[in-house]
Amino acid sequence: MRTRVTELFGIEYPIFAFSHCRDVVAAVSRAGGMGVLGALHFTPEELELELKWIDEHVGGRPYGVDVVMPAQYEGADLGDAEELVARLQGMIPDRHRQFVENLLAEHGVEPSTEGADKILLGWTDATARPQVEVALRHPIALLANALGPPPADVVEEAHRHGVKVAGLASNARHARKQVAVGVDIIVAQGTEAGGHTGDVSTMVLIPEVVDAVGKDTMVLAAGGIGRGRQMAAGMALGADGVWTGSIWLTVDEADTPEVARGKLLDATSRDTVRSRSWTGKPARLLRTPWTEAWESEESPGTLPMPMQFMLIADALRRMHRSGDGELVTFPVGQIVGSMNQVKPAAQVVYDLIEEYVDAVERLNKLTEA
Amino acid sequence: MRTRVTELFGIEYPIFAFSHCRDVVAAVSRAGGMGVLGALHFTPEELELELKWIDEHVGGRPYGVDVVMPAQYEGADLGDAEELVARLQGMIPDRHRQFVENLLAEHGVEPSTEGADKILLGWTDATARPQVEVALRHPIALLANALGPPPADVVEEAHRHGVKVAGLASNARHARKQVAVGVDIIVAQGTEAGGHTGDVSTMVLIPEVVDAVGKDTMVLAAGGIGRGRQMAAGMALGADGVWTGSIWLTVDEADTPEVARGKLLDATSRDTVRSRSWTGKPARLLRTPWTEAWESEESPGTLPMPMQFMLIADALRRMHRSGDGELVTFPVGQIVGSMNQVKPAAQVVYDLIEEYVDAVERLNKLTEA
Repeated sequence: MRTRVTELFGIEYPIFAFSHCRDVVAAVSRAGGMGVLGALHFTPEELELELKWIDEHVGGRPYGVDVVMPAQYEGADLGDAEELVARLQGMIPDRHRQFVENLLAEHGVEPSTEGADKILLGWTDATARPQVEVALRHPIALLANALGPPPADVVEEAHRHGVKVAGLASNARHARKQVAVGVDIIVAQGTEAGGHTGDVSTMVLIPEVVDAVGKDTMVLAAGGIGRGRQMAAGMALGADGVWTGSIWLTVDEADTPEVARGKLLDATSRDTVRSRSWTGKPARLLRTPWTEAWESEESPGTLPMPMQFMLIADALRRMHRSGDGELVTFPVGQIVGSMNQVKPAAQVVYDLIEEYVDAVERLNKLTEA
Repeated sequence: MRTRVTELFGIEYPIFAFSHCRDVVAAVSRAGGMGVLGALHFTPEELELELKWIDEHVGGRPYGVDVVMPAQYEGADLGDAEELVARLQGMIPDRHRQFVENLLAEHGVEPSTEGADKILLGWTDATARPQVEVALRHPIALLANALGPPPADVVEEAHRHGVKVAGLASNARHARKQVAVGVDIIVAQGTEAGGHTGDVSTMVLIPEVVDAVGKDTMVLAAGGIGRGRQMAAGMALGADGVWTGSIWLTVDEADTPEVARGKLLDATSRDTVRSRSWTGKPARLLRTPWTEAWESEESPGTLPMPMQFMLIADALRRMHRSGDGELVTFPVGQIVGSMNQVKPAAQVVYDLIEEYVDAVERLNKLTEA
């Protein structure tokens, strides 16, 4: 296949694979796509180790790094990251802490023994910027940002390193904003996607974004893409490639916690919900008693970002370690309904391409007659 | 173009156009697609007149009729339609009536002068069945049902008349149920569609339904389809054709009330919301102070179907006739964002096809290299 993005990066297939797992990133890049490592949960030191590992295992193929960096220096006046976290911790109401503890207790999750760990707020400028610095010391081909347009100086710095910049957008207005600060590639993400997501569907969003950003900006279709037919649909909508995330959670190489992986394999496309219960902003998650509790009458309501995640970070860790497993949720898109089999990442890439080719051939036959 | 549905019906393009307006139905069929008249709001006598008009203006091309018929004989034990309505009217709480009146008054809508009109509950078996009888006396090619599988005897009766039966489904399980009662064509409708809609997006839903119903059942893609690129995407996902609705609300021929039409032309893809405020079941509507009021803290909550529509039917008529127009809403899908121009229905058909062909050609170029 040959699109503007395969030409730009020298890759075989216009398939971008977002994953927090280095093994997946390297495997997809080796298979001819482009792996993109989600850096959110890593300290700069950890990220350095992950990227060094990828450099050694990616066979010289291009890969990317995804950070979560706000355009505005929010909280910059509140001191450094550690001070900020301490101040925000103090603002979390006891009622919310109690709600979480009661919910965990009902499901047999054991109390915290180690005290609240330090929480990494990867999505503040103060924490994301060092991640960018680390990333740019490696031979990455792409720097992606998942929270609106990245700061203009970060875009410039990436470009100085010969690194292209991608930004996620869930509506046409945001896409135009990103183009204005120099973003090279827009990842237009429909509401069916996992994690933070807007409300417009991929089917409606992609042509809108393609038309809004103009011919010089490349667009990747994201949200609901896990099969070759969906990849063909994304390309038919005008995209130059596809951005996938959820489908890598259940591949052989994924380090997804076992209890979550089992639930993802069993879930149908109707088993997700857009919920504020993860970060305070709407994110699509597997629907479990956790998401339902936050919608119930007993719910104290979710807290604004970033306090909601600070409130629940420790709870998330604990519910993976003990209890009945019922609460365990995970950010995942509606494509979870077709994630029913564990396969190596490379096989997922090849299956996507095989079905894609079939879909395009079928389309041709329809107009031949 | 040539697909299983163009062959089946002898039409040029696999484009199905749902509309409550006979002019649109006839215009689309004459342009080479297939118009489908929504019968919901018509008495049997009115429907007879509409279909007679279509017969005279469709130039011998095939067209269809869409009813809303439940599989179960709900309310059959409550007597005939008139008795049923009277009994249900008595069950609407005063608090709800007061909420509606206050909301209208705030927006300058005048009080009802003519007393509550009789309300036609087109979606009960008792009212839909006579509509089916009328429809089958006309040379229709398709009988569509928008509320789960139609009763098996209705499917048989349609087949005896040589009429194919289509059923709307918003998930794979419902699609299989419809196939089991003999439905010929599944309209798989994603959450981005207007009116009653499920929660799975078109991108995810279509391949699931195509795989679930097997090779002998045809599938039309619905939800988010208003441009040729979206039509190509729907076909790439495995559909045999596309089912469209919203885009016909703003064509030249449409009898959409002026105040609503203006709002639809101005709206973006983010200006819709899935709301129970119309019928008690989730339906995608234009977001206005009406839908917002039902989500507000003052809202008494919506009533179950069919009482919610009985509660608001008179209010809907009045808000079109007087007041500031702010409340006016309309069932419409996210595609409303690209409905910005009033064109003849035939032009919409030709534009769809032209962009469709371009999209397929572009796909071919991507794999040629």
